[in-house]
Amino acid sequence: MPNNRNSHSKTTTKITTKIITIITDFGSFYPAQMKGVILSKVPDAVLVDIAHDIPAQDIRAGAFALMSSVGYFPRGTVHLAVIDPGVGTNRLGVVVVSGGHLFVGPDNGLLMPAAKSLGKPETYMIDHEFETAPTFHGRDVFAPVVAMLLLGEKPERFGPRIKPIDLDFGEARFAKDQIEAQIIFVDNFGNLILNMRKIPSGQLRLMDRNLKRVNTYAEAERSEPLITRGSHGLAEIAVNQGNAARLFGLSSGDRIVLGRAICLE
Amino acid sequence: MPNNRNSHSKTTTKITTKIITIITDFGSFYPAQMKGVILSKVPDAVLVDIAHDIPAQDIRAGAFALMSSVGYFPRGTVHLAVIDPGVGTNRLGVVVVSGGHLFVGPDNGLLMPAAKSLGKPETYMIDHEFETAPTFHGRDVFAPVVAMLLLGEKPERFGPRIKPIDLDFGEARFAKDQIEAQIIFVDNFGNLILNMRKIPSGQLRLMDRNLKRVNTYAEAERSEPLITRGSHGLAEIAVNQGNAARLFGLSSGDRIVLGRAICLE
Amino acid sequence: MPNNRNSHSKTTTKITTKIITIITDFGSFYPAQMKGVILSKVPDAVLVDIAHDIPAQDIRAGAFALMSSVGYFPRGTVHLAVIDPGVGTNRLGVVVVSGGHLFVGPDNGLLMPAAKSLGKPETYMIDHEFETAPTFHGRDVFAPVVAMLLLGEKPERFGPRIKPIDLDFGEARFAKDQIEAQIIFVDNFGNLILNMRKIPSGQLRLMDRNLKRVNTYAEAERSEPLITRGSHGLAEIAVNQGNAARLFGLSSGDRIVLGRAICLE
Repeated sequence: MPNNRNSHSKTTTKITTKIITIITDFGSFYPAQMKGVILSKVPDAVLVDIAHDIPAQDIRAGAFALMSSVGYFPRGTVHLAVIDPGVGTNRLGVVVVSGGHLFVGPDNGLLMPAAKSLGKPETYMIDHEFETAPTFHGRDVFAPVVAMLLLGEKPERFGPRIKPIDLDFGEARFAKDQIEAQIIFVDNFGNLILNMRKIPSGQLRLMDRNLKRVNTYAEAERSEPLITRGSHGLAEIAVNQGNAARLFGLSSGDRIVLGRAICLE
Repeated sequence: MPNNRNSHSKTTTKITTKIITIITDFGSFYPAQMKGVILSKVPDAVLVDIAHDIPAQDIRAGAFALMSSVGYFPRGTVHLAVIDPGVGTNRLGVVVVSGGHLFVGPDNGLLMPAAKSLGKPETYMIDHEFETAPTFHGRDVFAPVVAMLLLGEKPERFGPRIKPIDLDFGEARFAKDQIEAQIIFVDNFGNLILNMRKIPSGQLRLMDRNLKRVNTYAEAERSEPLITRGSHGLAEIAVNQGNAARLFGLSSGDRIVLGRAICLE
Repeated sequence: MPNNRNSHSKTTTKITTKIITIITDFGSFYPAQMKGVILSKVPDAVLVDIAHDIPAQDIRAGAFALMSSVGYFPRGTVHLAVIDPGVGTNRLGVVVVSGGHLFVGPDNGLLMPAAKSLGKPETYMIDHEFETAPTFHGRDVFAPVVAMLLLGEKPERFGPRIKPIDLDFGEARFAKDQIEAQIIFVDNFGNLILNMRKIPSGQLRLMDRNLKRVNTYAEAERSEPLITRGSHGLAEIAVNQGNAARLFGLSSGDRIVLGRAICLE
């Protein structure tokens, strides 16, 4: 009994979780430097990569990937996110607290959809005493802040509460005969995730192809374009056992128009 | 004590290994959601990615990569594998036990070559009580099952024993003047791994290029095509300090014909 | 005691950090086999990937990435590096000790810039008793050596001290009207890292484009080529919110000529 760490919790009564997720647009190589900084201070940190292949400087794609992931991690997780076209400018760094999770990254909206998905965010500025020479903020500012949070520092320790820069994914515009939407994210299968929460009734078309409305990909024929509501709650255009991004020549950030044919049923 | 392979190391006496390997065709981003689900229940799980860049829906390539890897992990490791073109259909999920390892994934053959490489597999269905709405099975079904197994649940807890769908890589067909083989896997160096366990004597040719039979790449000249038996036991066509997949324009799943010239020695 | 989260855990008081960094040109799939070998012997090892997408057999790029990373890890870290065009030849394997860090890999220069950046390296040959059949040295030789080092073996246990093969990145050659430099590494943003420690005064040009000398990318206009000194201490050519490798059509290993215009200020 005493040496079984999981004996009476289903989960975590005694274990203090030290989980850190990391999301960047760095590719490989630079993330390890941030990990080294964290592990030097917190050797038992558990580091989980969400993605490092977010398209360079695509804050919206990163914000979507982060938002889609955080809910699967336990309370107490610290999320380190660095997609930062403004590095070297006077953009702030922030610590955001929401729903028992912590977020560390630039104040450019990247953290906000995820933070708002978990609760009511409180945002603290990372004050200049933690700033360094203009270099690699992910490693030299944000990673040390993550380590200090894991070691018990309070978010308010880093600076005053501020109103953060927000980001939302917009909302598709529904007209009688068409819908204007934007692609937020393209995943590894070429699925196109849209800023569209509702899939209206009636036949939808994209570039002269009908989109079959389905609950699961397998309801479409092989190579048939389809539209479905993903587990993230947003509409997703896919091709069963194919690649919608390649079929339609579309990528993250593109705006599309979906044609609507009113069904007379 | 006697059957603990690490018995006198100071570190391993009390630690129950909680190693999970993960292999998918998801690219980045989705695997983190599965990791969050597992870590929420088992915060001290040790997560090891085998690969997330298996070609989309290429069950054979994933099965090969899994088979080649599992033998290097200790007994008690749980292998989570999700390459799942049938998601959303009525294909089953399974837990497979073999050689002291556990496997969790879809019942489409993906797990079987690895499981058979370690022992005599027993396969248990994951019953409908664990099923959820048609969404992301890797995260919503398989990851929770992995966590429960790590916490001590028995495989038979999830459903009855069944006969799984099998997969083998076939076997190259040897004729007097040629060999018909199939490419199972292409690695990062462009090496072509074939469903061929034996390399016959005599000169072999592919697309009018001689393949030098070698034990190590360095026995071939720079840029010379070669054939060798990889550490996985299968024949592998490579180019010393080059890329065979690019040289021959071949990829995973392609069938090839190797010409044989009978050597009169 | 109350606010130190690690005070009574049995794990963190005594744990000598068991951090292993790994850098290879393997892509995915093969690194997991090395990890399995290490975790089989040292289940509480903390494995950190630096990169597995180093261009195939590009020892210099790997050496740069390793050198840039090791200083952010704590003393006691073991760095496993395998970029090994000479595998299967009689090149040696080595253990290098420097600045309290350990390095394991081939004796081809890969480890030396990193080791020299931390102190005065001592290099030990990995003797033949640890060698195996000609197969996958990363997994069959180097990973077991890493595990033995983590379990307390001394580097001299593996073989005698030797003089290793060295590697340096060379040094750009400064002439009155031009500078000849070489690209050591291209990162995920297309930034070109040069073997050039000093950025001289005066306007620099590359292929008829002026390079703005800046301290941070944000000082350049959007899409403007720039030159700056990276946090690694080397000159770096970049494009603000763009991709210099694509703009100039350059990649790792290329030699470039920077034009100098003497400023009469």
